[in-house]
Amino acid sequence: MKVNLMHGAGGEVMGELLGVLTKFTHKNAGGIGLESLDDGAVIPIGGLNIVFTTDSHVVQPIFFPGGDIGRIAVSGTINDLAMMGGRPIALSCGMVIEEGFEVADLERIVASMDGALGEVGASIVTGDTKVLEKGALDGIVINTAGIGVAEKIVRDNGLLPGDVIIASGTIGDHGIAIMSHREGFDLGEQIRSDVSPLWGMVERALAAGEIHSMKDPTRGGFANAINEMASKSRVHVEIEEEALPIRTSVRSAAAMLGIDPLEVANEGKAIMGVAAEDAEAILAALRSHPYGRDAAIIGRVVEGRDVVMKTKIGGERYIEPPVGDPVPRVC
Amino acid sequence: MKVNLMHGAGGEVMGELLGVLTKFTHKNAGGIGLESLDDGAVIPIGGLNIVFTTDSHVVQPIFFPGGDIGRIAVSGTINDLAMMGGRPIALSCGMVIEEGFEVADLERIVASMDGALGEVGASIVTGDTKVLEKGALDGIVINTAGIGVAEKIVRDNGLLPGDVIIASGTIGDHGIAIMSHREGFDLGEQIRSDVSPLWGMVERALAAGEIHSMKDPTRGGFANAINEMASKSRVHVEIEEEALPIRTSVRSAAAMLGIDPLEVANEGKAIMGVAAEDAEAILAALRSHPYGRDAAIIGRVVEGRDVVMKTKIGGERYIEPPVGDPVPRVC
Ligand SMILES: Nc1ncnc2c1ncn2[C@@H]1O[C@H](COP(=O)(O)OP(=O)(O)OP(=O)(O)O)[C@@H](O)[C@H]1O
Ligand SMILES: Nc1ncnc2c1ncn2[C@@H]1O[C@H](COP(=O)(O)OP(=O)(O)OP(=O)(O)O)[C@@H](O)[C@H]1O
Ligand SMILES: [Mg+2]
Ligand SMILES: [Mg+2]
Ligand SMILES: [Mg+2]
Ligand SMILES: [Mg+2]
Ligand SMILES: [Mg+2]
Ligand SMILES: [Mg+2]
Repeated sequence: MKVNLMHGAGGEVMGELLGVLTKFTHKNAGGIGLESLDDGAVIPIGGLNIVFTTDSHVVQPIFFPGGDIGRIAVSGTINDLAMMGGRPIALSCGMVIEEGFEVADLERIVASMDGALGEVGASIVTGDTKVLEKGALDGIVINTAGIGVAEKIVRDNGLLPGDVIIASGTIGDHGIAIMSHREGFDLGEQIRSDVSPLWGMVERALAAGEIHSMKDPTRGGFANAINEMASKSRVHVEIEEEALPIRTSVRSAAAMLGIDPLEVANEGKAIMGVAAEDAEAILAALRSHPYGRDAAIIGRVVEGRDVVMKTKIGGERYIEPPVGDPVPRVC
Repeated sequence: MKVNLMHGAGGEVMGELLGVLTKFTHKNAGGIGLESLDDGAVIPIGGLNIVFTTDSHVVQPIFFPGGDIGRIAVSGTINDLAMMGGRPIALSCGMVIEEGFEVADLERIVASMDGALGEVGASIVTGDTKVLEKGALDGIVINTAGIGVAEKIVRDNGLLPGDVIIASGTIGDHGIAIMSHREGFDLGEQIRSDVSPLWGMVERALAAGEIHSMKDPTRGGFANAINEMASKSRVHVEIEEEALPIRTSVRSAAAMLGIDPLEVANEGKAIMGVAAEDAEAILAALRSHPYGRDAAIIGRVVEGRDVVMKTKIGGERYIEPPVGDPVPRVC
């Protein structure tokens, strides 16, 4: 069997390859390890919950409306730490660069990474650089890994019947921005990636009430994240279509592209399941932060299985876990 | 300016690019950060010294005499942790794979990583997988980052006049094995990479006496590592050519290839500066471990600058810091 593009697209097909790639006998260092396939791992060290995660970034183009590969590389790892409840502390940066790459572009990328780090008070403390001969790599790959500390660990499998589902903002912006930009749609640049480091926003939410479960809807989008949360938590989730925040411009572009905005990557959003009695307080906390302005209560958790959306016209349809993200090299 | 192959070759030219790549204002999380350009960073968390490091691996071919990309990916990070005095605890694994890559090869790589982890009691606890379209990447890139805990931090800038320099074994094996294999030299497979996770060996050495400074001679080889240790420590190092352990087969192949075995990567060796009174005890500790069988005292530290080798015929020559490793994609 050979690897195909869907094996890297964050959906059901990638899940199959992960069966091979996580076949380690050494896959847990005492806390939460590979077996749980959560946003990051947790390692108990010296009485603390050390959160550890990694993402490699291959987004194309490397500069796009609303961001660049450097901002994604830092934000992606900060957000996976934040989704586990971890305050980001230190990141590593592994760059693999094609011969001929412009040093001026590297300077822009480093400055952008630095800006994202500054927003949350984290630092790049170690790194590595490899250069591949021209033609052996299309541009640049940036890997970051990150270490954080969680006072209270948040899992992606912690949804409980009775919980309220909150989205921290509009859905679909990053994937549709990348795809529109690639296709050369002239939308007056109004569709921009949401790529952002979320710890500041998440910290306020954590302080405002009980968050039972949290995940960032990256590859495979909201559809993938909510299905993973529901199935790992063994609950049923009802989403209100009317409540789901999606920008009109994103909706139109998605329709033109023939892509479901619920299945494309977001890079600055969190999906949370929260205790019903705390929902309003957490919503207010999210909205108090610039990255959470458009936060909304979008559904609820009940006993059962699967994710169903109550449509605007009063029907119901399943939100299925996607085969994979429809946008290649989205992050 | 454009990136060239020497920018990724671990020597003086890479040092120039690092000026650009480490231009972060956020580059230290409270302990040892990017500014020191050591094998890893140290972050004080909860009263412990958390060591953190990363390396990406692009070695070609991915399976070679004595090892494979998986074994290097795990050993490289374990060794950078060990060089800081850190017991390796948890690693991340970021894979970027070309479309069409054989899943059977991934299985071999994962099994090999697992074996290396098992040797030192570390685990892969988190990861990421991206797939690039056919032609956008030559095969596979594996990044690992690692977390360790150091009781006593060891730096690469800690050499003191009076110290004794120890090499933990033969020099040049990995780079010359890769190059000989690529060139199709039929040497009866007697030149094999030394790629190995060194924590077990280093742990014994740390228990046996005062190690003032330590570095793994990877890209740019022994010449690069000893020069970096000497110049950062602001001391002069004298190396005895006669004492330097180099296999006869490695020496012959290096001569045929026109490559200096002191400038090629090792993937299972440590260079140490130790207190003179502890040198014999540390040497014995190293030799008690299979990966340290060929350990030898190879020189000493005095006041001054630079690294000089006393040759077998009674002369002296500078060991210069190499421009870069002469073997492309060596690790
Ligand atoms: N090559 C790999 N080796 C080990 N574990 C892996 C590997 N690839 C992915 N994983 C694990 O699989 C799970 C899913 O990974 P995935 O990358 O989809 O998560 P994510 O980072 O939250 O999403 P995204 O990468 O889209 O931001 C995670 O728990 C991750 O640690
Ligand atoms: N892209 C980068 N961003 C930030 N720091 C980097 C980057 N590349 C290298 N560094 C830093 O530069 C120093 C030298 O890196 P280098 O990779 O040569 O060290 P090493 O891992 O010990 O050697 P090797 O990679 O050959 O095993 C290290 O301190 C590393 O953290
Ligand atoms: Mg995630
Ligand atoms: Mg992620
Ligand atoms: Mg390195
Ligand atoms: Mg090193
Ligand atoms: Mg290294
Ligand atoms: Mg990931």
